[in-house]
Amino acid sequence: MGITLYTFYPSDNCLRAETVLRELELQYEVEIVDLMKGHQKQDIYGSVNLRKQVPSLKDDDAVITESVACVMYLQQVYGVGKKSLLPASKKELGECLSYIAQFHEKLNPNAIAGTALFGGGTKESLAPRIAKLKQELTVWEKILDGKDFLVGDISLADFVLFPFFNTQFLLLKLPPEEYPNLFRFVSEMRERPSVKECRYWGEGGYEVFAALAKGVEFLA
Amino acid sequence: MGITLYTFYPSDNCLRAETVLRELELQYEVEIVDLMKGHQKQDIYGSVNLRKQVPSLKDDDAVITESVACVMYLQQVYGVGKKSLLPASKKELGECLSYIAQFHEKLNPNAIAGTALFGGGTKESLAPRIAKLKQELTVWEKILDGKDFLVGDISLADFVLFPFFNTQFLLLKLPPEEYPNLFRFVSEMRERPSVKECRYWGEGGYEVFAALAKGVEFLA
Repeated sequence: MGITLYTFYPSDNCLRAETVLRELELQYEVEIVDLMKGHQKQDIYGSVNLRKQVPSLKDDDAVITESVACVMYLQQVYGVGKKSLLPASKKELGECLSYIAQFHEKLNPNAIAGTALFGGGTKESLAPRIAKLKQELTVWEKILDGKDFLVGDISLADFVLFPFFNTQFLLLKLPPEEYPNLFRFVSEMRERPSVKECRYWGEGGYEVFAALAKGVEFLA
Repeated sequence: MGITLYTFYPSDNCLRAETVLRELELQYEVEIVDLMKGHQKQDIYGSVNLRKQVPSLKDDDAVITESVACVMYLQQVYGVGKKSLLPASKKELGECLSYIAQFHEKLNPNAIAGTALFGGGTKESLAPRIAKLKQELTVWEKILDGKDFLVGDISLADFVLFPFFNTQFLLLKLPPEEYPNLFRFVSEMRERPSVKECRYWGEGGYEVFAALAKGVEFLA
C-alpha cells in the first residue's frame, strides 16, 4: 500500500503536491497520467478520481483530489514535529491559512494558461482576466515586501503559492523588474531541494512545459 | 483580547465562520460590518483586513481572512479531542479535505448571486454560469446519495459546504424535488443548534437576506 501520486509533470498543481511529499521526506510511488494522451479518461484512473484530474493521491484507502487538499492532507497526517509546515504561532498560522485560501479565491480563478491553451482564448478575449491577474499580483508583491517567504522561515503557504507564481513568470513572461519581490521569492523557492529535484524540471516534465509555453506565447 | 468575528449577518460566508465558532463552543465578540453602509471601507476595518472583506477573525494578534481560512484556523487551534471537526481516519480525512478544496475550485467560482446583485448581471448574461452551477450541483447530489452528511457523522466539510448549498436553494429557488439529497442535507444542517442559533437567521440577518433575495428573483 503506501502513498501513490497520480501526476503529470508539466502541471504546476502537480509540482505543488510532489514538492510537499519531498519536503515531508515521504516515500511515494508515481503514476504518470499523461493528459496529452487522454490517460485521465481511462477507467483505471476514473476509479481513483471521479473528477479525472491530476494531481490525486492514494494513501492506503484514502483518495485525495485537488492539489491543495493533497498538501493539507499530507501536512495533517505526516507533518509532525520539526517537519510540520504549519506555523506554531497563532499569528503566523492565521497568515498561512489566509494566504492558502486567497490562492483559491483570488489567484487561481485568474489563471489563464489553461483557457489560452485548451479553451481557445485570444489575447483580446483574455485581456480582462490578464489585467485582473496582474492587479492581484501587485497585492502579493506588497505582501512579500521585505520578506524572504510569505510566512516566517517557510510554511505550507509558500509551497502552495510558489508553483502559481512560477508559472506566471514562465508563461506570461512577467517582467522580473516589475515584480522584484515575487521574482526573488520564486528564484529562492526554485533552489529549494524539494522543489529542484521534482521531475517537473527534468526530462519529460519541463520540456513538455516549454512546449506548452510556446502555445501561450501570444499572451506575453 | 480573545476572538472577534467581523461579520455581516446575511452573508453565507459569515454564517460559515460563526457556525464553526459555535460548534467548537468558543467565546467570541462580534463586530458588525454593514456592507450596505460601506463599513468595510472604514479605516478601522481596513487595519484588520487589507482586503476589506467579511468574515474576518481576530484572535489575539492573529488576523484571518477568507471564511474557509477562518474555520481551518479555528479547527487547527481549538478543534482538539471530541470537538475536532477533522475525521480521524485517513479515508474520511481525505474526503473532508478534498470536498473543502472542491468548494473553492468547483462551486464558489460559479456562485452568481453577488454578480447578479452588484455586478449588473442579467438572466441571459448569467445563463452559462447558472448552467455550470446546476451541472456541478448534480455531482454533489451524487456524492450525498445515501448519506446524511458529506463525511461520516459530520465534519468540517459539512460546515464549509452547507452555507453555499443553502444559499442556492434560497436564492436560485432550486426545486427541492430535483435535488432531494442536497435538500435533505441542507434541511438537516439547518436544524443543527450551532447553525440554527446563528444571527444569520434572526433579526437583522435573515430579513436583510430576504430583501437581497428579492433582487435576484429574476434568476429563479
